[in-house]
Amino acid sequence: MSVASADHDNALTALAESDVPAYMKELGQRARAAAKTLRAADSGSKNRALCAIARELDAARPALLEANQADLERGRQNGLDAALLDRLALTEARIDAMITGLEQVGALPDPVGEISAMNYRPSGIQVGKMRVPLGVIGIIFESRPNVTIEAASLCLKSGNACILRGGSEAQASNAALNACLQAGLKSAGLPSSAVQVVATTDRAAVGALITMPEFVDVIIPRGGKSLIARISLEARVPVIKHLDGVCHVYIDATADPAKALAIAINAKTHRYGTCNTMETLLVDAAVADLILPELARAFAEFEVELRGCERTRALLPQALEATEEDWAAEYLAPILAVRVVDGIDDAMAHIERYSSQHTDAIVTEDYSLARRFMAEVDSSSVVVNASTRFADGFEYGLGAEIGISTDKLHARGPVGLEGLTTQKYVVLGEGQVRQ
Amino acid sequence: MSVASADHDNALTALAESDVPAYMKELGQRARAAAKTLRAADSGSKNRALCAIARELDAARPALLEANQADLERGRQNGLDAALLDRLALTEARIDAMITGLEQVGALPDPVGEISAMNYRPSGIQVGKMRVPLGVIGIIFESRPNVTIEAASLCLKSGNACILRGGSEAQASNAALNACLQAGLKSAGLPSSAVQVVATTDRAAVGALITMPEFVDVIIPRGGKSLIARISLEARVPVIKHLDGVCHVYIDATADPAKALAIAINAKTHRYGTCNTMETLLVDAAVADLILPELARAFAEFEVELRGCERTRALLPQALEATEEDWAAEYLAPILAVRVVDGIDDAMAHIERYSSQHTDAIVTEDYSLARRFMAEVDSSSVVVNASTRFADGFEYGLGAEIGISTDKLHARGPVGLEGLTTQKYVVLGEGQVRQ
Repeated sequence: MSVASADHDNALTALAESDVPAYMKELGQRARAAAKTLRAADSGSKNRALCAIARELDAARPALLEANQADLERGRQNGLDAALLDRLALTEARIDAMITGLEQVGALPDPVGEISAMNYRPSGIQVGKMRVPLGVIGIIFESRPNVTIEAASLCLKSGNACILRGGSEAQASNAALNACLQAGLKSAGLPSSAVQVVATTDRAAVGALITMPEFVDVIIPRGGKSLIARISLEARVPVIKHLDGVCHVYIDATADPAKALAIAINAKTHRYGTCNTMETLLVDAAVADLILPELARAFAEFEVELRGCERTRALLPQALEATEEDWAAEYLAPILAVRVVDGIDDAMAHIERYSSQHTDAIVTEDYSLARRFMAEVDSSSVVVNASTRFADGFEYGLGAEIGISTDKLHARGPVGLEGLTTQKYVVLGEGQVRQ
Repeated sequence: MSVASADHDNALTALAESDVPAYMKELGQRARAAAKTLRAADSGSKNRALCAIARELDAARPALLEANQADLERGRQNGLDAALLDRLALTEARIDAMITGLEQVGALPDPVGEISAMNYRPSGIQVGKMRVPLGVIGIIFESRPNVTIEAASLCLKSGNACILRGGSEAQASNAALNACLQAGLKSAGLPSSAVQVVATTDRAAVGALITMPEFVDVIIPRGGKSLIARISLEARVPVIKHLDGVCHVYIDATADPAKALAIAINAKTHRYGTCNTMETLLVDAAVADLILPELARAFAEFEVELRGCERTRALLPQALEATEEDWAAEYLAPILAVRVVDGIDDAMAHIERYSSQHTDAIVTEDYSLARRFMAEVDSSSVVVNASTRFADGFEYGLGAEIGISTDKLHARGPVGLEGLTTQKYVVLGEGQVRQ
């Protein structure tokens, strides 16, 4: 590092401590300038940076683990619970996973620059669309330090500058990861401010980041529902987000019982804490007496607590009584709400009312019902005869995932590299003027 | 109309006068319910409704003109200026244009339901994307009553329910147009609340419309910059908008002088008041002495006032001195800012700083410069060797245009039917579960 740039960085660090709004504005201006360079960067230099960052991580293992130990130590002193400490921890295996992730993102096709739908118009001009980066992306996340590398790699590959605000509990880990990012960017000749890790834990930094439309094009919050809800409410910049995953599986009268059982069990028990986990099971009254007892036995083995409607409880006396809150609940736990419904219209009405429009599935062998469910259910993923757990960027073949959006505009469902880009129109002429 | 529904409508009208927030909530709930029906409506019934509305307009000409006369009369009494009165006026020709517009939208392909990129994944599931309506669209516009029909037709065709808030000066005209819309919807068997025209001129209606995310999925404001800026600031719902059209033409040293002249004249003088009109001309210093005097003679014929940088004024002493404000100005008038620049980098730096990212053009015969301009200029339309005036939904072949977006997310540039839709993921399986 040159003396001049070291001085510059020291001045920035001092600003982070003394004047958070001015510091965030400075980060914003730098990001905007870096975005201009990244917009024109070719795939080769972006991929070289990703590989260089991977090499830096590999070389920095002792420093990363040491920094992480400091965070863990502080976390224990501050009384963080075991689950949070686990998310915070870096291990050799997790460093391996970050390195593999960087290499995988490097190997993905570059979305930037693709020109599509280029056609001649009657006036003689050619009109098409070119895929381009969004510009500057602000990402706000909580404890897991590996998100720093994941988010940086996806933004870099898609030609966006990013400003990353991680959890305060991971501050030392994120600083160590940032050193690897900076070294990798430098060796590939990309601007250091292509990726900027916010150096203050002051909460005012988040407030500034989400209210600078002149410097930030989109905010992606990753974390708990309350964090995301607050950011969405206060942001003056578009937010790509999902709040809830209240996902349904509807077992229709014509469902293959073996498929229905396998899907329902997998959708609930494969992982309890994920947003694409089933939270409510709907069963057609015509087959409830056949399906529910068998399902209940299977769920009992997984120690899943069932909360049912009246008709469910008539068949499964062991189920607790479901209340109105249960139909809207995202348990993220071994609990399942169960409702007996009268056919697909009743099922779709329940989904219309209670679904968070994340992922909803039908199990059916009826062609027309599958077709209706697909067209009429207004969720970001609509699934026929498969587990809701498939709603995931990797399973969908996006090659990466920065998050899942339950918004309707721009990006809906799992968001990969394409969701971090936009399309502009390009017009080619030979001197044409408008008549 | 049945007695029950007439009673219902009278109750709604009373609510519009007594309690605007409650009235808007009622419109929102009705729109949400209608959106569910429209989502599943086939192209045939939507097209039948469009044709029926056209027939209703044709049959209602005397009533439309009479209602419009009342608006014009009131406008004159309230001192509206001539330009506003002209925008407000309905004529036989403008009614013809509305009818033709409806028929054209009817003839466009239905964007809804298209499934794309459907592929098998290693797990055996098929994953694709299905194009679906956004849901409920709120449109806020000013005096031109024909926007009522245009907006309603595009929302209907794309399967969206809409709530239309026109200018208070067009209230009687909009009520008469709404009668045609309602009759057309009814005859096609679509819900009357598929299109709702706000019946109160109370400004609180706008405030309510833009802050009901539970009922409205997107707001499209059409009108002056201050209206759009205010709505964007206060909305709690995504807004599709453009604020400014500060469009540039850059004439490079290799430009064909005849093409450069034709494009610059057309981009400025074809229409002064449109957002894709050129506001600043950039000329490479290498050809400024050749190009500028000829351009100045041509602009003089159109009585376009020139405001130039120092180097421009050295060549064109008749030009006024351009100030910093001129580079950022959207004149919407026969005024043009002119700057002499040193090559493409200087030109792109000017555009990066002052462009509103609407439409920017280069005139060049140099392949590499054309390629760079296309990739590096971050505007919603980037044009090579053609007039900026082509940035338009019809010229681009969208078949229709609800507006032009200078936002980056969701829709960028001219917004047609596709911009009123979104894509959800559809997953087809045979009982697959996640491993």
